[in-house]
Parts: sequence; structure tokens; C-alpha cells
Amino acid sequence: MRGRSILSLEDLATDEIEALLDLTAHFADAGIEPNLAGRFVCGLFFNPSLRTRTAIQVATESLGAHCVIHDVGGGVWKLETEAGVVMDGDKAEHIRDAIGKFLSGVVDCIGVRAFPDLSNPYEENRQDRVLHAVVEAATVPIVNLESALFHPMQALADLFVLRNHLKGGQRADHTIALTWAYHPKALPMSVPNSALLAFCRAGYRVKLAHPEGFDLDAEIMTRARELAGDRLTVHHDLDEGVTGARVIYAKSWGARWEYAAAPDVLAQRSARGDWREWIIDGRRQALADPGAFMHCLPVRRNVVVTDEVIDGPHSWVAEQARSRVLTQAAVLHEIVA
Amino acid sequence: MRGRSILSLEDLATDEIEALLDLTAHFADAGIEPNLAGRFVCGLFFNPSLRTRTAIQVATESLGAHCVIHDVGGGVWKLETEAGVVMDGDKAEHIRDAIGKFLSGVVDCIGVRAFPDLSNPYEENRQDRVLHAVVEAATVPIVNLESALFHPMQALADLFVLRNHLKGGQRADHTIALTWAYHPKALPMSVPNSALLAFCRAGYRVKLAHPEGFDLDAEIMTRARELAGDRLTVHHDLDEGVTGARVIYAKSWGARWEYAAAPDVLAQRSARGDWREWIIDGRRQALADPGAFMHCLPVRRNVVVTDEVIDGPHSWVAEQARSRVLTQAAVLHEIVA
Amino acid sequence: MRGRSILSLEDLATDEIEALLDLTAHFADAGIEPNLAGRFVCGLFFNPSLRTRTAIQVATESLGAHCVIHDVGGGVWKLETEAGVVMDGDKAEHIRDAIGKFLSGVVDCIGVRAFPDLSNPYEENRQDRVLHAVVEAATVPIVNLESALFHPMQALADLFVLRNHLKGGQRADHTIALTWAYHPKALPMSVPNSALLAFCRAGYRVKLAHPEGFDLDAEIMTRARELAGDRLTVHHDLDEGVTGARVIYAKSWGARWEYAAAPDVLAQRSARGDWREWIIDGRRQALADPGAFMHCLPVRRNVVVTDEVIDGPHSWVAEQARSRVLTQAAVLHEIVA
Repeated sequence: MRGRSILSLEDLATDEIEALLDLTAHFADAGIEPNLAGRFVCGLFFNPSLRTRTAIQVATESLGAHCVIHDVGGGVWKLETEAGVVMDGDKAEHIRDAIGKFLSGVVDCIGVRAFPDLSNPYEENRQDRVLHAVVEAATVPIVNLESALFHPMQALADLFVLRNHLKGGQRADHTIALTWAYHPKALPMSVPNSALLAFCRAGYRVKLAHPEGFDLDAEIMTRARELAGDRLTVHHDLDEGVTGARVIYAKSWGARWEYAAAPDVLAQRSARGDWREWIIDGRRQALADPGAFMHCLPVRRNVVVTDEVIDGPHSWVAEQARSRVLTQAAVLHEIVA
Repeated sequence: MRGRSILSLEDLATDEIEALLDLTAHFADAGIEPNLAGRFVCGLFFNPSLRTRTAIQVATESLGAHCVIHDVGGGVWKLETEAGVVMDGDKAEHIRDAIGKFLSGVVDCIGVRAFPDLSNPYEENRQDRVLHAVVEAATVPIVNLESALFHPMQALADLFVLRNHLKGGQRADHTIALTWAYHPKALPMSVPNSALLAFCRAGYRVKLAHPEGFDLDAEIMTRARELAGDRLTVHHDLDEGVTGARVIYAKSWGARWEYAAAPDVLAQRSARGDWREWIIDGRRQALADPGAFMHCLPVRRNVVVTDEVIDGPHSWVAEQARSRVLTQAAVLHEIVA
Repeated sequence: MRGRSILSLEDLATDEIEALLDLTAHFADAGIEPNLAGRFVCGLFFNPSLRTRTAIQVATESLGAHCVIHDVGGGVWKLETEAGVVMDGDKAEHIRDAIGKFLSGVVDCIGVRAFPDLSNPYEENRQDRVLHAVVEAATVPIVNLESALFHPMQALADLFVLRNHLKGGQRADHTIALTWAYHPKALPMSVPNSALLAFCRAGYRVKLAHPEGFDLDAEIMTRARELAGDRLTVHHDLDEGVTGARVIYAKSWGARWEYAAAPDVLAQRSARGDWREWIIDGRRQALADPGAFMHCLPVRRNVVVTDEVIDGPHSWVAEQARSRVLTQAAVLHEIVA
């Protein structure tokens, strides 16, 4: 994978993903192998981060390399991404110069977190313009650290946790309920998109559950069905969604009608409260079998999941979060030339 | 001390403090011993910092370890600390998840700076909820880098400076004047609390001087009297407080009536100006013997202390500040497993 | 140069500059020599930065040293710089304490980026008070990472690029057009000041072109004429300025009448639009011979320069930006004791 960018796990062949998970397992047992002495990895953050920022630094430095962290303004897009623009507005630099002419030449890999907020229309949002502008400008491998559409580093850690726990039988013997949850804010779809495709491709049975109107991206759904066939089912009732599942993977996201919402739609948004019942609690965990709980964090306690479940014996949340360092290290180990 | 948290020097036995000071002296002579290769120390800052932030990074990296610095929003508490809360407000993550499920598993020690501002009532403020929530969630040692009540890393550096200078005779032969000073803003009591207990326990004679109404915490005072007996005296006149002291340790702090102050109390606060005379100048230094000057920095010049005193031959301020790296290194050397 | 500060290339003898460029060339060929193991370099940023911040970290760590980065508030001067002031205002610490009593004692070199915005009068602005207060307080070498008057690290990288490309004949055979360009905002003069003096001293022929009213600093111009004699000419027409030049070095800056501008002057400022024609495009590049393009970045595309020119075969912009790491490493290699 030397020199390759990873914007989505879809950029990798199935055996490449398995190889990354094997390397992660090796790192978990034997420690991270420092094969990148003298290299530099840059983490470029357009959005705040705790886990990802920690993971990229700890992984990079454990590999013997150096980590340069840059915050690109708090929520403000200071870098121009469109080609050919007359830059007489508020953007002081073009991403072609910042990344292409400069950063690409002085570091060996760039991790980019750039998910737009939901104030833009969905169709614009899903184009992930910043990420793609970085990729187009760069001459070094780019790792997507979460964009509007994908969060591949999270999905890789999730696959690692699933692989550690679900060992017996065929993968299709294990059912994962990927469930929407209530949250007071409309959030990006990157995590459910990446989880859905990763779990379908890995061979698990997937029950996707969300309220009507909260459909995931149409292209993503088409691809998921292509990967999973009848291993994928969709449910609009949470009880039905979790029943019989080995794992409940909860995550909230915004509906497409919430993007760039006009005031009258915002009024409708307050109707979100109708779905307050979409929470993973002890009763729902009992409907599953035995209902291990997964979430990418950060999580709203007693909104998305009750304390009882997230702190209970079947919570894999800590393992997911901590695996982020190991999977990040495996990725950098393989792609940095 | 392997694996121990240090929230206050009160968490350490007297001989443990002396051992840390011995190790600091060794580092001062022979350089910091890099015994933490491959380890990670996180500095988690809820408040701004120059000295502490520099000290934790320089100490950590001098020990051969890596340092991860996180700023948790500018003055905004983004992490929920209360247990059992329904998190549908403005806090996106619980400290039990950020620290307990994640950070504890990927770093080897966490330093936390989290002092609330004085807009909350004193009784709430002194509970140091963020710090204690971190400790409760963490599975790695926590170092308090300044909370509402304590600043143990500062007190340790202060003890080191005192020990270097006050060598002859018994410790009780040396008098330290710990004096309140005027400052336009009401500040936390962490530094005077930690200094008072540390100096009393170390065996020095302590003259605590502050205006009426600026009493330190009642529990702290009780403990100080228990430690010092008649080596501790309290004065409400600055001239009287500094007279005959070997060392003047100045620091401003807010009175308890200034916490969560209502508008009419704020009017009273402007009456702070009544205490503008509480400044360490050449005349007061001359009342002492010979009146070495100490302050933890940052300091308001010509408000807390005159240029003449802080830049004079008896100023130990630079030594205090620079010792912060050495004492921090000694602490990490001992507690990181 | 051990222990020396570099506030401007004027602080260095001509043969010292050549020695730094020789060392840079050696680093470019053979890699950066890690001679600073265990040392600490601090980057103190009063203004935002991408290239300089990356360069100081990558250079420092490539030298085997550690890099401590501090941001001193977003545009707010939190450090007092004046001597003797009664500090009862909004500044919590004096630079004599932050730098002199503390930072100087715990790091081996400090890089400072501190250019004031143009809201102050020009005569005050050009005094570079923060930078000089840091130098006065410090006991370790200071590197100017851009102040109101100078940007020596940029000029050194520029000289390196020129030296790589302009090899034949005498230096006076090569003409560099240093040209003002239109920009919607009034910017500091640091880059053109440093470039002008550096190019004049290096022996190149320099055509300085800017609209009437945009003169550079009078002292700088006097020094440039002293260095260059009749190798320096001044032009108020851009076509005339670039004609026959081997290199076009474009940079916008504010006119002195734009500093601390009153509302009626601001109205005049909008008259800046009169100079929108000051842009480097293909036609102007063709007037030069063959018109290599240089700019320090960040640059407003299609305002300062067209895409065609900056992305064309004669653009040296990427080489300039990337050389910043190498020249920075050469400087630290030589001055850190």
C-alpha cells in the first residue's frame, strides 16, 4: 500500500483490509514497530478532535516518526478549495499552495479531518470538497480522518474489535445492529456510512435501523446491498432492529432534510424529539444476543445510550477507542513510503 | 510512588517529598535521566498556561517520553463531569469516556490544569469537580497542574528553591512571610494554599499576612495549624507580616465574598482598591531579613511587586520558574509506571 | 554564529550568509545533520502561521532537538512589553518575566513571530517593540520569524533558491524585479524589506516596482542604495518594472498612509482598487526574461498572480516554501550553543 491515500475503506481491497487488521493484531501483541524513524506525519484539523488527534500523534511517534499538528481555524474555512477563483474574499491561501506547493514537500503523509457542518445543502456537503482538494494538491499519501461521507480510521478500529470478539463460525453467523439514536443535534453520516460498508464487506449480517426519513446516502446504500445481498436488512423500529443481534452499534446522524434547513424545516427539526425513544437501554440490550454495545465516541450518555449499558460488562466502547492508536499505526506503517 | 496520583502535596508523605527534592537536585546537577523512553504523558489544559505547559513538555521529553498536549476549549467546559446526567445540553462528551474509556488506555500519565473561574459559589468551586472526575475515571496516575484548591507542582518547585538557599541551622530558624498582594482581579487560592501547607510541613516558620476578609480556606488553615503549631502566625498588616522574614512569598487571591458575587458585592469589590498598598517594594523588603522575594508568576509588576524588588539581587523568581521543569521531571520519573 | 540572535539578515556578515547557504545546500544533498540532540527550541507565535510553524518544528526535530510551540492569544497582546509600567490593565505578564526569568532558562533558542497589525501608526509599528522586548529579556539566541520590519528566514530561503538557479556569470548580470501587487488588505512590509536588502547585498541587479505612495521605509531604502548603488532602480509602472528581469518577485504591502487610518483615509483605501492592474500574468511574465516567478506565500491567486504563472514551468514558489525547512535548520544548527 506504499504511497496510497485512504479516503474510505472502499479504496482498499478486502485482503488489504485484512492485512491491516493482522498488522494491528501484531502491534497489539508485540508493540508498534518503529519503522518510520525520521519521517514526518502532519495532522491537519479543520474540526476539533480528541481521539483522532491523540491517535495520530501517539501512532506516529510510536512508529518513530514526528507529528506536526495544525488547526485550520475554529470552524472557519480559511483555505480556498475551488480552482480558478479570483481570491479577493476572506480566504488568504489556496489549498493547492498550502498543501501542493508546501506541505507535500516537507512531510511524508497528511491526515485530514474536514467535515463541513450541516448548514450547506446535502448534495454539496457529500462532495467532500476540502478533502478532495487536498488529495488533488498533494504528492504524499492522504489519510481521511473524517469527512462528510467517511471515517475509515474509525471503521478499521471497529472491524478490529469485531474480529477480536466474533471468532467462532462464519461471519454471516454474527448479526450487527447498526442503529440510529436520538441526539439533540444533527450530525454527519461519516461513521454510519463507513461502518455499514465495512461490516457488509467483512461478511457480517447487518440490521440497519433508523426512523423513516433518516435514510443514509443512496449511493452508499446501493453499494452496501451489492456487498451484502440479503445479509443486509433495513428496519424502522428500534426493538425490531436490535432483536437477536450479537452487537448493537449505535450512532446518531442528521436526516437529509436537516441539511441547510430553512426556518420552517427547523421547526420540523424540533420534531426530532419524536425520536427520543431511540436509545439503547438495558431492555433493548436484552432483546439482543447478548448485545455487545459499540459506539465511536463522543457519546451523549442517557440520550444515545444509558450509563448501565455503556458501563456494563458487554460494552466494547473502550476497546474501540483505544484500538484507534493501533489501527492508525498499522495504516501509517503501510502507506508511508 | 509508582502509579500514584498527586493532587496535592498532602497526598505524599514527608519523606516522599524530600525524596522528590533529592531527585530534583540530582537532575539539576547531572541532567534529567531519560528513564521513560516510549512512554506518553498527556497535558490536558482547561485553562491557559505558559510555564506549566512548557514544563510538562520539556520534562516529559527530557525523560525520553512523548508529550501530548490538549486544550479543552477556551474557558468553556465541554466535558460533562456529573454522573448519571441526561446529556442533552451543550456538553458533547462525559469525562468518564474521554478519560476513562479512551485517554487512560493510550497514555501513561495525565497532567490536568482545571481551575474554575470565580463565577461559581466558593463551596462549589473548592470541590474541584473536574479534577476529581478525571481521577475517578482514570486508570493512570494524574498530576494536578493547578486546580481551585491546590498547585502542588508549584509548591514542590518552591520547596526546592527554599532548600537550596536556606541551608544553615534548623528550618524553624527561617521565617517565610506568605503575603497577599493587591491585584485588579480576584484569583484562585491554589498557590497560597499549597505554599502554606508545604512550608508549614517542611518545618519553616510562616507569617501569613492578608487583609481582613481574605482568609484562606478554613480546612486548609486547620491543617496548617496542625502542621506548624506556633510556627504559624497570621497578620492583617503587611509591614508587620514581612518584618524579620528571610523570604517574602507574595501572591494575590480572591476573597470568598468575591466568588459568584452579585452586583452589589461587585461594587464592594471595586473597594479592592483599598488594598492597593499591599505591594512588595524596597521599603518592605528592607523590613525583612534580608528579604528574598518569591512569586510563582505570572506577576503584575508595580502592582504586586515593584521592578526594583523583582529584578533585584534577592529575587528568586527566575529560579522558581525554571525549577518547574526539574521538579516536574522528578515527579514523572517516580510516578509513571 | 554560536549564541547569536538573527533579527534581520543585516545582523549577519555577507560571508556568514554565504556560509548558511552552503550549509543549506549540504543539508539538501545529504540530509539535515542532527547535531542538537537534547536541545529545546521554542516557537513563540503572536500571529498565525503555516509555513513558518511547520518549518521551525520540522527543522528542529530533524536536528534531533525538541520543539515547543506556544500561541500567544489570537491577535491579542497578552504580554506587556514596556518597562516600568504599573500593570493594572489587561496584560497579565511582562515579557521580562515570561522570557527573561522563565523561558530563556529552559529552552536553548526562541523563534518569535510578532508582527503588529496595521492599526497603529507606522512610526510605532516599525519599532517592533515585542521582538525587541523579547531580545532584551532573553539570554538565549532569538530568531525573528517575521516582525513588522523583517522576515529574515524568508529572505534566506529566497537567496537559496536564487543561488540554485542563477549560476552563470556575475550576480549583477541577473535582474530581479521586486514588484508590489494588488491585494484587498494592507499587509506588513517585512518580506519586501528583507528581500530588497538581501538581493541588493547579494549583488543582484534589482528593479523595485510599486505604485506612487507605496514607498518602502526610508531607512531601508537608504541602506539598499548603499548596498546596491546603481544596481537598484525604482519604477512606478509594473510593465516597466518587469521588463527584462530574470526573476519576478511579487509581494503586496500596505502604504504608510494606510497605517492607523482614519475613516476618511479608509475611504481612500478603497481607492486601492485603482491598482488592481498590478498583477503578474502571462503577458507580464513574457516581458521578463524568461521571468521566473517567486512569492513567499500565502498568495491570493488571480489577484497577485494568475494561476497560469504560479502553476507554470517557471514558478519557483514551491522551491521557496520547501527550502524554508532547510534554511531554518541551517540557522539553528549554527546559532544554538
